[in-house]
Amino acid sequence: MRLSDYDWKRLAKTYHSKDKLSMNEPISFANTRVVLSHPSHPGNIGAAARAMKTMGLARLVLINPKHFPDPVADARASGAVDVLAAARTCATLDEALEGTVLVAALTSRQRDFAPPTFSLRDAMAELANQARQQEVALLFGTEMSGLRNSELEKCHMRVEIPTAPAYPSLNLAAAVQVAAYELRMASLAATGCSAVYGELAVHEEIEGFYQHLEQELIASGFLDPTHPKKLMTRLRQLFSRTRLEKDEVNILRGILKCLRNS
Amino acid sequence: MRLSDYDWKRLAKTYHSKDKLSMNEPISFANTRVVLSHPSHPGNIGAAARAMKTMGLARLVLINPKHFPDPVADARASGAVDVLAAARTCATLDEALEGTVLVAALTSRQRDFAPPTFSLRDAMAELANQARQQEVALLFGTEMSGLRNSELEKCHMRVEIPTAPAYPSLNLAAAVQVAAYELRMASLAATGCSAVYGELAVHEEIEGFYQHLEQELIASGFLDPTHPKKLMTRLRQLFSRTRLEKDEVNILRGILKCLRNS
Repeated sequence: MRLSDYDWKRLAKTYHSKDKLSMNEPISFANTRVVLSHPSHPGNIGAAARAMKTMGLARLVLINPKHFPDPVADARASGAVDVLAAARTCATLDEALEGTVLVAALTSRQRDFAPPTFSLRDAMAELANQARQQEVALLFGTEMSGLRNSELEKCHMRVEIPTAPAYPSLNLAAAVQVAAYELRMASLAATGCSAVYGELAVHEEIEGFYQHLEQELIASGFLDPTHPKKLMTRLRQLFSRTRLEKDEVNILRGILKCLRNS
Repeated sequence: MRLSDYDWKRLAKTYHSKDKLSMNEPISFANTRVVLSHPSHPGNIGAAARAMKTMGLARLVLINPKHFPDPVADARASGAVDVLAAARTCATLDEALEGTVLVAALTSRQRDFAPPTFSLRDAMAELANQARQQEVALLFGTEMSGLRNSELEKCHMRVEIPTAPAYPSLNLAAAVQVAAYELRMASLAATGCSAVYGELAVHEEIEGFYQHLEQELIASGFLDPTHPKKLMTRLRQLFSRTRLEKDEVNILRGILKCLRNS
């Protein structure tokens, strides 16, 4: 059984009202999903589910997992098999990020074209605050090679776990554990004060804007589709930093349409 | 090959001078050991070693591991097999804690007779500061049942990882990962200012004092060895909180000797 977003929220509500101890759990957890892109080892998926649940997170999304469902995942999940049972599997990152307004990508390597870099602690504080109102995601790459540049471009924060320079190689589930712990710490402390925004545009609205923008840039001759260089990547970086509101996306698309007709 | 404390320090020095990136690693890491009491799964030992190394910790001590060395431990350690190769195995907690002045015990359950409870973040700040000067330890209990009360009594801080009330069950290696991460964060920030003590007495000096004290209490009739109740536990709690200095242990033992002869 795979659950829709609606089911998830209902589940979270039931869960909270059932368990007296959980009634004090931060509301932001229901708005937070953990996305694993192309995980290759089912054991890591199970261990990640367990790591999530120990910190109060319940929403797992898997992009093209190599083996899932899998008995090895169930075994490693231990008491968190419910997180696996409720996990959503999907084919693309866009699907996985539908409805989110803020995405933190965990990577170990510095990249040339990436969203701004945050320490884990700072990033989780930001995420926890945002999650009090809207949907957010924590994104983890595949075990061996991490996230692709094309995936990173769709995120707002590049997050580094401060590891030892001599051996920065955290296991996938260990990275989920540390990030979920920091998110929990931040959520318990979150005041909701630092995030001063109007209603933010969700992932698919912003992707729609980028497509619209790219079409217009091509139509106008500014962007050569056979030699696109890094133009769209740079524009993505610019708008990622600003955290576009719904209204702003509408304004920008209105401008594009208007320029086109003039 | 198992290494002595002396070898460890030499190894840490060589390691630091060899690897340019590691030269900036906090000095406190060489003074910090991770002690696993009676671990039953070799996979957890290997994963714990990996978790340690990602955060710059290298000194692993195992009290009566069920299976060690073991190929499963090596496999899970991945690039941290050197931490396993340098691990010390011993039979008792006293052996494992020799030379330490501050011990933080990770537990999930509240106990009646335990050292004072700290959040993980606060405890690691304390440990990081102390480790700039003297030896400290992080102690983890066995997978299923955690630490025994008799083990907890020998520690100065009971540390709780803030988990979700509905599922507080961290895997052993996951607990090591989160604690090592917090210790690293604290070590990178440690100023050495908060720990204002003279030279602290090490574990075996304090244990010697307790033995001496108990003998005198029995000899004097104050303590009935057939009905000891919780007297020694309470005295341990009292002195754990104060963090005895070397000189103070000598004074206390001098007093005991003097009272005995009077």
